[in-house]
Amino acid sequence: MGGRAAYIAVDWGTTHRRAFAMSEAGAVLDGLHEERGVLALTADAYPAEIAALRARFGARPVIAVGMVGSNRGWQSAPYVDAPATLAALAEACLEPVPDVRIVPGVALRDGARPDVMRGEEIQVFGAIGVGAAPATALFCQPGTHNKWIETVDGAITDFTTVMTGEFFALFRAHGILAGMLDGAVEDGTAFRAGIRRGLASGNLAATLFEVRSGLLLDRLAPEEAAPYASGILVGADLGTRADLRRRPVHLLGGGHLAALYAAAVGEAGGDPVMVPDGSTTAGIHAIWSLRA
Amino acid sequence: MGGRAAYIAVDWGTTHRRAFAMSEAGAVLDGLHEERGVLALTADAYPAEIAALRARFGARPVIAVGMVGSNRGWQSAPYVDAPATLAALAEACLEPVPDVRIVPGVALRDGARPDVMRGEEIQVFGAIGVGAAPATALFCQPGTHNKWIETVDGAITDFTTVMTGEFFALFRAHGILAGMLDGAVEDGTAFRAGIRRGLASGNLAATLFEVRSGLLLDRLAPEEAAPYASGILVGADLGTRADLRRRPVHLLGGGHLAALYAAAVGEAGGDPVMVPDGSTTAGIHAIWSLRA
Repeated sequence: MGGRAAYIAVDWGTTHRRAFAMSEAGAVLDGLHEERGVLALTADAYPAEIAALRARFGARPVIAVGMVGSNRGWQSAPYVDAPATLAALAEACLEPVPDVRIVPGVALRDGARPDVMRGEEIQVFGAIGVGAAPATALFCQPGTHNKWIETVDGAITDFTTVMTGEFFALFRAHGILAGMLDGAVEDGTAFRAGIRRGLASGNLAATLFEVRSGLLLDRLAPEEAAPYASGILVGADLGTRADLRRRPVHLLGGGHLAALYAAAVGEAGGDPVMVPDGSTTAGIHAIWSLRA
Repeated sequence: MGGRAAYIAVDWGTTHRRAFAMSEAGAVLDGLHEERGVLALTADAYPAEIAALRARFGARPVIAVGMVGSNRGWQSAPYVDAPATLAALAEACLEPVPDVRIVPGVALRDGARPDVMRGEEIQVFGAIGVGAAPATALFCQPGTHNKWIETVDGAITDFTTVMTGEFFALFRAHGILAGMLDGAVEDGTAFRAGIRRGLASGNLAATLFEVRSGLLLDRLAPEEAAPYASGILVGADLGTRADLRRRPVHLLGGGHLAALYAAAVGEAGGDPVMVPDGSTTAGIHAIWSLRA
């Protein structure tokens, strides 16, 4: 199949890499999902990784996004400052070797607070490009570091990174709550109760302790602890979005986590819109289409 | 010296144990500070531990407070519900063996939110007992699990556990901020800036990520990261106390941490009052003095 590919699109993250053989029209012809994230690679390992992808998909140009362009990746592709357009990203691509382009991330450099992202921006541009979201919209990309992203007329104007997923993973593995949060997190009574508690919480470091005290005082059942704690974290995250009820929240990434966030947005009185999968390749294809 | 002791007071925590030979009048005659906390001991090890303390201080009655009375300690001493008086605690003491009493903790069982404590309550009663704080006051006991404690006419009526210290320790050791927070935390420009940022933060899981993005974008120097992050955590904690400017905050525990909190309370416009060391033994002595 690789013979028909026009180029190779790579979503190169911290722990995983997804690579796709892309047609000239932007169709995904073939794909690979591997545990070959940047943390598993040294900077000098990338030429061989590119050669392996070309052996699989054909000797085509490569466009890569994500942490591959960070100081822990291949080469550091300097951030484009917000407001950032797709054209600005395309223009700022790094070319570590001929026919390989690394798309930079976006930074809030000089505003009231600093923030950075690498990889989520391409999904936003992809979603807008395929019409899954309007050009002026609010996006949410749940994950280890949840991103809230605002666009105006197709440019990323503001965004906020929230360590919601990392908080949950850390508290499940370490500290006073370790061993209490091993249950499955599903949408249900406990998760919804957690969302409401989190929405009302002004102090996450206090509210999370209620998981322990609630268990000790039999106000919480052991199997409720994980979904309740997850709900607190997601609810606290949503609770700080003053604009949650004013416009739809376009949820990126799909899967279980996006579905949980959609439930939470609904519980908070907002309007969740699930963006179909494929935003990353759509965004990379938009970069490809802008080439000279 | 042990020969003059009337009883032995023990502050038995999670990781450490402090034991004191006490005179009938409440003076500390001798003391030991050891890494013999409850996590280092199985439940059947306590009789031998008591024997060792008596070998050192004399064959005297023992009064112990703290995690020794938890389900991870010797025997579980059921919580006294708030509002809790010193007399109620004394009455509810557990006697696992003759001449050894374990003072229970305090619980918020049926209110809007659950909470528990074991050990801090005795410091509050001690501070009030020696006149270091009025009978109606707001207390703060900084630590792994910071406690805000309110008293009315000498009874503990409300309290909040905030995992401020645990958050800092976890983020220093694990996750995206690991390796960035190893510097010393001192009161200074970065700590004060963190306090102001934390006071204004509505979302701790977002604001803490600014440590990483601030470093990446050269808005924060590496040596500022630890005091700035600590300031964010303490500031966010203080920022949720609506009563901070209405009455003094009596800081328990002393040392570097209480001094940092005193600086933070001042930065937030509050009135910090340092409670001199010795509240724990003063509180245990008040229990001793109430015996039949």
